[in-house]
Amino acid sequence: MTGYHCLAIPGPTNMPFEIRQAMELPLEDHRAPDFGEFTLPLLDDLKKIFRTQTGRVFVFPGSGTGGWESAIANTLSEGDRILTSVYGHFSHLWADMCKRFKLNVDIINQNWGKGVPLEKYRELLEKDKNHSIKAVLVCHNETATGVTSDVMGVRHILDELSHPALLLVDGVSSIGSLEFHMDYWGIDVAVSASQKGFMMPTGLAIVGVSKKALSLCDKADLPRCFFDFSEMARMNDDGYFPYTPATNLLRGLRASVDMLLKEGLDNVHKRHFRLAEGVRRAVAAWGLSTCAERPEFSSDTVTAVKVKPGIDANEIIKHAYYDFKVSLGGGLSILNGDVFRIGHLGWTNETMILQALGGVELAMLKSGFLFEPGAGVGAAIQHYSGTKRLVLQAA
Amino acid sequence: MTGYHCLAIPGPTNMPFEIRQAMELPLEDHRAPDFGEFTLPLLDDLKKIFRTQTGRVFVFPGSGTGGWESAIANTLSEGDRILTSVYGHFSHLWADMCKRFKLNVDIINQNWGKGVPLEKYRELLEKDKNHSIKAVLVCHNETATGVTSDVMGVRHILDELSHPALLLVDGVSSIGSLEFHMDYWGIDVAVSASQKGFMMPTGLAIVGVSKKALSLCDKADLPRCFFDFSEMARMNDDGYFPYTPATNLLRGLRASVDMLLKEGLDNVHKRHFRLAEGVRRAVAAWGLSTCAERPEFSSDTVTAVKVKPGIDANEIIKHAYYDFKVSLGGGLSILNGDVFRIGHLGWTNETMILQALGGVELAMLKSGFLFEPGAGVGAAIQHYSGTKRLVLQAA
Amino acid sequence: MTGYHCLAIPGPTNMPFEIRQAMELPLEDHRAPDFGEFTLPLLDDLKKIFRTQTGRVFVFPGSGTGGWESAIANTLSEGDRILTSVYGHFSHLWADMCKRFKLNVDIINQNWGKGVPLEKYRELLEKDKNHSIKAVLVCHNETATGVTSDVMGVRHILDELSHPALLLVDGVSSIGSLEFHMDYWGIDVAVSASQKGFMMPTGLAIVGVSKKALSLCDKADLPRCFFDFSEMARMNDDGYFPYTPATNLLRGLRASVDMLLKEGLDNVHKRHFRLAEGVRRAVAAWGLSTCAERPEFSSDTVTAVKVKPGIDANEIIKHAYYDFKVSLGGGLSILNGDVFRIGHLGWTNETMILQALGGVELAMLKSGFLFEPGAGVGAAIQHYSGTKRLVLQAA
Amino acid sequence: MTGYHCLAIPGPTNMPFEIRQAMELPLEDHRAPDFGEFTLPLLDDLKKIFRTQTGRVFVFPGSGTGGWESAIANTLSEGDRILTSVYGHFSHLWADMCKRFKLNVDIINQNWGKGVPLEKYRELLEKDKNHSIKAVLVCHNETATGVTSDVMGVRHILDELSHPALLLVDGVSSIGSLEFHMDYWGIDVAVSASQKGFMMPTGLAIVGVSKKALSLCDKADLPRCFFDFSEMARMNDDGYFPYTPATNLLRGLRASVDMLLKEGLDNVHKRHFRLAEGVRRAVAAWGLSTCAERPEFSSDTVTAVKVKPGIDANEIIKHAYYDFKVSLGGGLSILNGDVFRIGHLGWTNETMILQALGGVELAMLKSGFLFEPGAGVGAAIQHYSGTKRLVLQAA
Repeated sequence: MTGYHCLAIPGPTNMPFEIRQAMELPLEDHRAPDFGEFTLPLLDDLKKIFRTQTGRVFVFPGSGTGGWESAIANTLSEGDRILTSVYGHFSHLWADMCKRFKLNVDIINQNWGKGVPLEKYRELLEKDKNHSIKAVLVCHNETATGVTSDVMGVRHILDELSHPALLLVDGVSSIGSLEFHMDYWGIDVAVSASQKGFMMPTGLAIVGVSKKALSLCDKADLPRCFFDFSEMARMNDDGYFPYTPATNLLRGLRASVDMLLKEGLDNVHKRHFRLAEGVRRAVAAWGLSTCAERPEFSSDTVTAVKVKPGIDANEIIKHAYYDFKVSLGGGLSILNGDVFRIGHLGWTNETMILQALGGVELAMLKSGFLFEPGAGVGAAIQHYSGTKRLVLQAA
Repeated sequence: MTGYHCLAIPGPTNMPFEIRQAMELPLEDHRAPDFGEFTLPLLDDLKKIFRTQTGRVFVFPGSGTGGWESAIANTLSEGDRILTSVYGHFSHLWADMCKRFKLNVDIINQNWGKGVPLEKYRELLEKDKNHSIKAVLVCHNETATGVTSDVMGVRHILDELSHPALLLVDGVSSIGSLEFHMDYWGIDVAVSASQKGFMMPTGLAIVGVSKKALSLCDKADLPRCFFDFSEMARMNDDGYFPYTPATNLLRGLRASVDMLLKEGLDNVHKRHFRLAEGVRRAVAAWGLSTCAERPEFSSDTVTAVKVKPGIDANEIIKHAYYDFKVSLGGGLSILNGDVFRIGHLGWTNETMILQALGGVELAMLKSGFLFEPGAGVGAAIQHYSGTKRLVLQAA
Repeated sequence: MTGYHCLAIPGPTNMPFEIRQAMELPLEDHRAPDFGEFTLPLLDDLKKIFRTQTGRVFVFPGSGTGGWESAIANTLSEGDRILTSVYGHFSHLWADMCKRFKLNVDIINQNWGKGVPLEKYRELLEKDKNHSIKAVLVCHNETATGVTSDVMGVRHILDELSHPALLLVDGVSSIGSLEFHMDYWGIDVAVSASQKGFMMPTGLAIVGVSKKALSLCDKADLPRCFFDFSEMARMNDDGYFPYTPATNLLRGLRASVDMLLKEGLDNVHKRHFRLAEGVRRAVAAWGLSTCAERPEFSSDTVTAVKVKPGIDANEIIKHAYYDFKVSLGGGLSILNGDVFRIGHLGWTNETMILQALGGVELAMLKSGFLFEPGAGVGAAIQHYSGTKRLVLQAA
Repeated sequence: MTGYHCLAIPGPTNMPFEIRQAMELPLEDHRAPDFGEFTLPLLDDLKKIFRTQTGRVFVFPGSGTGGWESAIANTLSEGDRILTSVYGHFSHLWADMCKRFKLNVDIINQNWGKGVPLEKYRELLEKDKNHSIKAVLVCHNETATGVTSDVMGVRHILDELSHPALLLVDGVSSIGSLEFHMDYWGIDVAVSASQKGFMMPTGLAIVGVSKKALSLCDKADLPRCFFDFSEMARMNDDGYFPYTPATNLLRGLRASVDMLLKEGLDNVHKRHFRLAEGVRRAVAAWGLSTCAERPEFSSDTVTAVKVKPGIDANEIIKHAYYDFKVSLGGGLSILNGDVFRIGHLGWTNETMILQALGGVELAMLKSGFLFEPGAGVGAAIQHYSGTKRLVLQAA
């Protein structure tokens, strides 16, 4: 089938040619005497993306899952009590990992379509007078439901209660796209990965670590080696790594960070909001609703669209893929069949969103869901152009 | 500005990654002892694209303009009388080149929006009892107006009149996209270039030459060397070239030819028709008309859209480019300001067309031309999905 | 500084353009409905490289270190007794990791320059009547010293003693280059990585796992998630992964496996032997010796060269890098300053070895170590050409 | 066969990854409103490479042959008398092209191994009192023999005689590598191509044109269109081209020019001299001689090596290619079989030269030409390291 594949999943995202160019290099010697001249400024600039001045950022070969693992294995010990909440497939997976690592996990189950349950967190933390809760986990942007959570709200609670628990945050599908303030939000470990806001190939876990978290590593006795912060910190100090780093991905990361900083993080956030809003207008124009229960929960990086009863979301996804070369995200776990997801993060713009929405329309029509062709795309065009509705009638 | 640039001009077209892959090679030795093992099958397979069994295909570093030059310089002599017609910028340029080469050029001027004037050709050829006309030129697909001409009609006339003039055809924006039959249509020189139907970077003139044309080279005394057919034929016989060939483009051409043959030329043509039809539906939905005066003239590789009086087509093109990262073709020569052109040839598909149409809508709205947002895109979606019009009302 | 960098380290190795081409793709949807059509044959063909029919091969984002971690975390429990030996930097690191994972580690220290101490292994295993030793570790090819060990010898001992311990093998710098027989040698976990014999960028841990090892995962209670075999096996069964895989590296791996299988593993081994032998002749011609104490210990993927007293190996490495754009491996740990290493594995050939040797000669001369210029390169040329020594005298 | 191909021909040369990166772009719109922002500075910087302030540089899709054609077709008329000399295959070809273009060509035949015959030129120009000679042609660097000619000497003669003939120079294998001063040497048309000193893929003719030459275009009546200077100049003034330019090659050219200017042309020349000298030392060490008759004729971009009687140079070339993946240049025309050529221009360095020389040694030994293995490589190493000969004996 001809033409480019339209990648409208919430990661991997589309990759700019600037990053492709940066990786168009021969393999290189990661122990070269001047290798640090490349890595030290990169690691430094990554801090700007995480918005931390006092913390550090570590880069591991891996994925977001590896980043989650690093967050708990470096800061906690067997049997430690932690507090987390589940409101989607990915928040579930991280909680599950904590159990595998023999932590004592308090899980609050929340509707899939809502975000972090602030009041429940407050309640439990308030009760925890002797500070048995060692860490609080938050999934900032639940990629499965398209819901963004209030991390600052959790920080406020911890501060108000003077609770010393670590704040560990999954920022995989938010960092580099949505507002994220590691220092200001008082985050101890912030987990991201290369294939989302960084617009890169999968293969890197990118993890921000606060001074406090780093100072606790010695006491944390969960076994770890590959994802060990201390060893990484020690080698990074000179610009090297404890084992062979994925140098060509690091070269791509250099280009990625340059692009994000050049655009300016505030502009990046505004762009994501503007583009996401067009998608939400399209969803409304189709007469459909999002998984996010309320507008203020809506993620600007991914929209989970609920299909009408009697329609199989997986049919739409298959038609999009096979008939129109469009990749949509599927409904994960309990949402399977009821939801398809449109990614709108990273290296994208208005017409790329229109292409994806056009593909969704073609696939929905093919699946038997009828609506006025062009209605969704038109709503997005209207939003992007600032045109008033029903211009012809107005004329 | 973020996101991919949407290239909706009638060439260069979008390039498949398969071709990019094929060119991802170190530079190579064009006089290597086994170089012919690569070039001979490539030159042979190119004949399938031109649909010639008795002719040959030559590949020069160059562009379509170089191909035009090769067509006349190898077959004609100073003062030779030729017959051609002008119905757009490119047919004009070729005619002009003939004058620069000191040929005696009979030019028939035709409305820009029509194709080759068969009756006028018949008339002049009929009068030419002593066969002073040495060659008849036809621009198969006038890229400036989006009009496809009836080359077979010209062949019929020549045959009916038993006129021995050579038939030289500009197939730059048709070969590899539209129906084109070098042998069946009795074409003597067919000119193409890499950056259109071949989906490649600019840099190659690709020229089909009949046995008859080749046999006339010795008598043709226009000076030539770089574009000389005979020398090229002599070296090509062993798989080599008279001077350093553009080997990495040849590697890309190998991939291009493989892709076209794998899809099947008939499927390629059908795809171009189907996609072009969606564009034409969009134009109609916007209440606009095409430069092509009648539907049967419409090109399936490019559509020239006439804007409404009072609207500046160049404004639309600028907004598309600067505000939405979409490249549209401009109105060339006398069409400047009145026309913008949408290319829909080569490596494209439904959603890429929808992206381009969405970009056109955004740019038109920005330029002050009002219409129901999504109307054009919706009409194309309707066409591509086979949906009946006004489905909501029918429901 | 102009010209290509000469990468003569023992990994990352030089990358063939075929692999570069294979990765020249847009990012893709790892949950696409047909993704398994790509991954299933790849995972199957990887078994041919490991030479296992009954085991499986897993691919993780990571490095060799991650592979080591997977080997122990999936098969062992806290406090389990294991037997290993240290004869270089990398065998040391793996042993150290085992301690971090709270295993009870019996370490046999061996001269750096020798391989696995078979007799000591036999002795300890023989004494272990109640089979308290759960796993025996072997570093097949110690990259720090250029010594290849006798894994089959360890297997024989285990078999003769009917000892049920698992056999875990570090094949990072041997698999895909040197003879390696996972099934025939009775290996339970075989660890490799992408940037050595696979000629790829760093970023993948590639791990072969026997049926026996896989069946023990349930009982092994070391915490793990990212590197979990069972979850990987479950998802791999359908051609998917438990988390986002590094798809572009997987595309490269496809090309790598194709190339290795096309050349034939036996030919790959012979080529490595032939090229390595040229390097060893050069070392001898310079009047230097290798770290490998005896010829039969010599690795065919890397040669560690001992410099003369009074010469600083790091000076040579720096001159090679800064003055001649040649990357050599350094002496690691206790070998620092006394040794430089020449990698000769992966995508290489005679003249690439000559280039590296030429670079070594230039750097040694620059560092003040005098010898007849060309002596080493000449010895290698003599070997590669099959020429008798001193041909001029013979003539 | 494994490993990189060693490209030791005198063009195409090795291509730096910086240029590869620069061309790693989607195809683009050559009529984009801001295209001139890219092309205008590029065309300006090209003047620095040609070392002209008063002339212009034009870039055509094509090769050096196309550049030759542009030089004569834009400046001369049918029957014009020109003076040239032949001392190798390429000077012969250009002279031959002049005859095909119906010029009246005075050819001085010179030994292949010498350069431009200054005294003969002086003699003929002195006799030409009525200035019937309209142009004098010089091949600056004869790639077939490895001889560099004294262009400034020709200029001096023209100046001393106040002869107004144009000075047209083939600088294909010299510009960007060897000293070349378009203005200072009073050159009217200087022809180069992308695949030599510019380290790029083949596909561009790059032509410097003096004001004087440009002013004569109107009077020159040889037919031309594709290679027309005036039309190119007119469009270039705004940063555009008369027909679709090879944009991705232009992007590569931008990187090429940046690299050359960053290194500094004087450094580029010195580097070529230094590397070439190593090759010449190797040739001497093998007991062979160069085609260049005297040291001062020797080209620093290519060395043509004469083999011993009874040895077939083509055998050596074939063994190099098939057995060792090394591309050497062949003996062209009358030199066929007696000569092989080693290119040492463009993106190269000491160890790349050593690799090529090592390949030559392997191929010569394979072809039955006996010498002390390593003798040539060693002589080059000695030169590059500044080591005194026979260090061991001296020690």
